[in-house]
Amino acid sequence: MLYLVGVGLVPEHITKEAVEAIKRCERVLLDVYTVPVQEDQIGELEKIAGKKMERAERKVLEDGAAELVEEAREKDVAVVTFGDPLAATTHVALTLTAEKKGVSWKYVPGVSVLTYVPSRLGLEHYKFGWTVTVPEQWAHAPSFYERIRGNLKRRMHTLVLLDVGSGAMSIVEGLEALLHWAERLGRGWDKVVGVARAGHRDEKIVYGYPEELMETEWPEPPHSIVVPGKLHPVEEEALGRFVRGKR
Amino acid sequence: MLYLVGVGLVPEHITKEAVEAIKRCERVLLDVYTVPVQEDQIGELEKIAGKKMERAERKVLEDGAAELVEEAREKDVAVVTFGDPLAATTHVALTLTAEKKGVSWKYVPGVSVLTYVPSRLGLEHYKFGWTVTVPEQWAHAPSFYERIRGNLKRRMHTLVLLDVGSGAMSIVEGLEALLHWAERLGRGWDKVVGVARAGHRDEKIVYGYPEELMETEWPEPPHSIVVPGKLHPVEEEALGRFVRGKR
Repeated sequence: MLYLVGVGLVPEHITKEAVEAIKRCERVLLDVYTVPVQEDQIGELEKIAGKKMERAERKVLEDGAAELVEEAREKDVAVVTFGDPLAATTHVALTLTAEKKGVSWKYVPGVSVLTYVPSRLGLEHYKFGWTVTVPEQWAHAPSFYERIRGNLKRRMHTLVLLDVGSGAMSIVEGLEALLHWAERLGRGWDKVVGVARAGHRDEKIVYGYPEELMETEWPEPPHSIVVPGKLHPVEEEALGRFVRGKR
Repeated sequence: MLYLVGVGLVPEHITKEAVEAIKRCERVLLDVYTVPVQEDQIGELEKIAGKKMERAERKVLEDGAAELVEEAREKDVAVVTFGDPLAATTHVALTLTAEKKGVSWKYVPGVSVLTYVPSRLGLEHYKFGWTVTVPEQWAHAPSFYERIRGNLKRRMHTLVLLDVGSGAMSIVEGLEALLHWAERLGRGWDKVVGVARAGHRDEKIVYGYPEELMETEWPEPPHSIVVPGKLHPVEEEALGRFVRGKR
């Protein structure tokens, strides 16, 4: 059996089901490819789960998918991911490979940044339009920017994720990308929200104009940005918590 | 301190952080107002968390919000919710009341149906437009229907939640609502997905035309529906698992 196990944003988010799945498996791989993983978190996770984990890069999870699935035919193998395991396309592909080969697999869900951020900010989940990722090569094309604008046009909020390609992008870099295209295409920006280290003990959230957020001292990534659409008074009040200098 | 604790869709989804928060609290309320709760799940949850829970209806969580917050000033109080605790507006209001009164609160996230369903189906999260709820009084106005159409127009998927007002609505009732407005407004329906008892041992998922889903035997609610937009070949393949009669 192949277990696709999500452990949430930080080791304390691990679920009872995830602990049991990991304990059951003979081989446990930790995905360090689709999600940015911090060194200190791995040790904590291993302690909580009671198991050493091998780090799995792209060559194991994508190029080695067939091999991994064959191994799961004989014994219990877990692929462990921070966040939710099927939020990444790589792992959906893995489940399809397993099915083609007639190998069973199981989805063990985890707390995801996709739910955590709207909840943490006190924003209405149903008012979020599609999630956008700012690519590392953001200067090439404004498609990510146009998607945010599309949500705004419909008064919807946008969760903006930042590419983790060759080193996680920061809020400041993300805002530079947004401002670059805003200037080029002649549009201004209202207030946005910077979310650093969602769910971590040193989480930091600031609601303000891009210029204010760019002057803010941020802890290291993971970072994300929320571009609010039309705010309900309760949402406005909830975001008021995160105005700089207020707390 | 007021703890807003999510425990996921089923008791096995409870996180380490949630267990610890519940154990720490002197008073533990289980929200049976914003989320449909099943009898058998409560006992299981109490066993895992090691604590008896009082059931909290609207009069405690909304009308009694000020009182609840005052109590949390003196001692640790938990409001426990299946799913994620801040996906419901009621609990966001509770955090605002706490802040106005200067009482601390903490968000303890849980696995939510909002992440679980797209992942379980193998659909791309970023391609979901806004989440829609079919209201009990669906015959009054087509606004929920127009929102789904709006997502479809942009080729986006829709997670359709079903009102839990006076008894959770079923997939069949939800489809009746969709078909009613489709007929009135002169549009057809392509294939949709019915998801019954997401995350439960008797979870049942079927992908097919509304007529097929209406002839399907479903376990009891919670139910939801997904209306797919433009499918990527990998998504189409993933949904193929859920074609009726295939497994």
